[in-house]
Amino acid sequence: MKLSGLGEKKVIERLASFLDVRDDAACIPHGGEYLVLTTDMIYQKTHILPGMTAEQIGRFIVSVNVSDVAAMGAKPAAFLMACGLPRDMEYEYLERILRAAEKQCRRYGARYVGGDTKESDALTLAGFCMGRTKRPVTRSGAKRGDIVAVTGSLGAASLGVHLLLKGLRYPGSGGVVRKALEPVARVKEGLIIGRYANALTDTSDSLSMCVHDIADMSNTGIKLFSDKIPISASAKRLARKAGLSSHELALYGGGDYELVYTMPPKKFEKIADSIDTTEIGVVEGRGVVLVSGDAKVPLEKKGFEHFSH
Amino acid sequence: MKLSGLGEKKVIERLASFLDVRDDAACIPHGGEYLVLTTDMIYQKTHILPGMTAEQIGRFIVSVNVSDVAAMGAKPAAFLMACGLPRDMEYEYLERILRAAEKQCRRYGARYVGGDTKESDALTLAGFCMGRTKRPVTRSGAKRGDIVAVTGSLGAASLGVHLLLKGLRYPGSGGVVRKALEPVARVKEGLIIGRYANALTDTSDSLSMCVHDIADMSNTGIKLFSDKIPISASAKRLARKAGLSSHELALYGGGDYELVYTMPPKKFEKIADSIDTTEIGVVEGRGVVLVSGDAKVPLEKKGFEHFSH
Repeated sequence: MKLSGLGEKKVIERLASFLDVRDDAACIPHGGEYLVLTTDMIYQKTHILPGMTAEQIGRFIVSVNVSDVAAMGAKPAAFLMACGLPRDMEYEYLERILRAAEKQCRRYGARYVGGDTKESDALTLAGFCMGRTKRPVTRSGAKRGDIVAVTGSLGAASLGVHLLLKGLRYPGSGGVVRKALEPVARVKEGLIIGRYANALTDTSDSLSMCVHDIADMSNTGIKLFSDKIPISASAKRLARKAGLSSHELALYGGGDYELVYTMPPKKFEKIADSIDTTEIGVVEGRGVVLVSGDAKVPLEKKGFEHFSH
Repeated sequence: MKLSGLGEKKVIERLASFLDVRDDAACIPHGGEYLVLTTDMIYQKTHILPGMTAEQIGRFIVSVNVSDVAAMGAKPAAFLMACGLPRDMEYEYLERILRAAEKQCRRYGARYVGGDTKESDALTLAGFCMGRTKRPVTRSGAKRGDIVAVTGSLGAASLGVHLLLKGLRYPGSGGVVRKALEPVARVKEGLIIGRYANALTDTSDSLSMCVHDIADMSNTGIKLFSDKIPISASAKRLARKAGLSSHELALYGGGDYELVYTMPPKKFEKIADSIDTTEIGVVEGRGVVLVSGDAKVPLEKKGFEHFSH
């Protein structure tokens, strides 16, 4: 069976079954705490958006890796990057990517400590990030009665990707486009959430995907309240202009790199004022259900996926 | 300036100058010891040799990463791999690569803990290895009076690459070809050498490159004795058949993944019987000199390099 016939999620599922990989990052006890380790790769043709500058590419590869560390409730410590580089690339362009990556690491409190450069046909960047935490939070610890919450707002990044790919521009669309080109990892929020959360992950693929993952791996159900899902006013307005549903984008669009987590309600009260976060559901029942007014429907598991397009 | 105009070493030198990367692996103090972190990438067209099986590819990416950890005198602990995969690749082929990688990790005492799969045009594997040590050994600690030594023997891997690329086969050439296709990281040796060595690196690029690196970074000179450089009898015989100098291969050929190190002579006596290792020179004077009988010539800094071919 070819990879394109399986789709990315199925490929990862099958590989994970014998590699025992289940979370945003691997977790290893060391020196009285835990080290979390993750890798994320981007490739010119399939990941680098039109118009992305060298600096944006450098910041992007750091942020997507750091987000996986934040999604374990860990503090980023060290970053490495292997670069596959076409031979006709200008050295100055490469240096701009790496200088931006180094600066982005510092922004997150991590050190850019090493890498590799190799020749390839198209720009390929594989980042690796190591983080530290005393309390790693996986996807599998959600408990009945926990609330489900998300940081920031959703839908803007995938709307931004849509506008970039279609070459569309509207007055005031700079913000959603920037969210697609320059995602920010929720490091500070992850550390605060990580103190009390029972389950935690990031919305790199989609809200739907991560809620399903949490429910499946925690062997429980989740009820999401459609009206509570935070979508910025500008994303709503611009989605309408582009003929898209901002709601669909928020549920099934990827690229926002917000954190989704579950936590006992009393603990949520403790942290809710210190970060930008919204309660969107509750851990209960079986399966993942979307409640919209009086209607209750199973939430489709859907998001961004490679190979199968 | 294009990367092809600079060559890999110059690119790495320039990048290293602002990233402060100097060694086989980055080194971070944690929990009373040091973590060493490294990444190494291979790419279908430029790194994967003709006839390499899926299993050999899987073992190769692990070994080259683990070798960088061994070259710090550290014990491999965790391995991750980001895979760029063409969409028409068979899933079974991918699984063979990853199962072999997982097995190779266990052979070295490391755990294969995570990864990433992305779509790309040609197979690209970026490995990442974390190791641990109480005494990391860099390239920059060589001291006057140290002996210079190497593990195993040299030249076979680059001879094997030559035979594979030219499609040549001779009776008994299986061994050197296997050295090219299935390099073995010197983990056990690295741990023993790491107890006493003042400088340590691996011969992934060439003996010449690593001796120059050690001399430059340690701000000292090295004298190598040409006759002492270990070359296996079969590599000598087969190089003659192929019209190559086994001596040149041993000095300037890459891919052997042996360890080169400097150490006080008395310490060398302590370990020399417990591992397969040969004294080949001494740390003294300035520059790198090759002594051959009565002749003394500066050793050219030369080895395998990307971009500039």
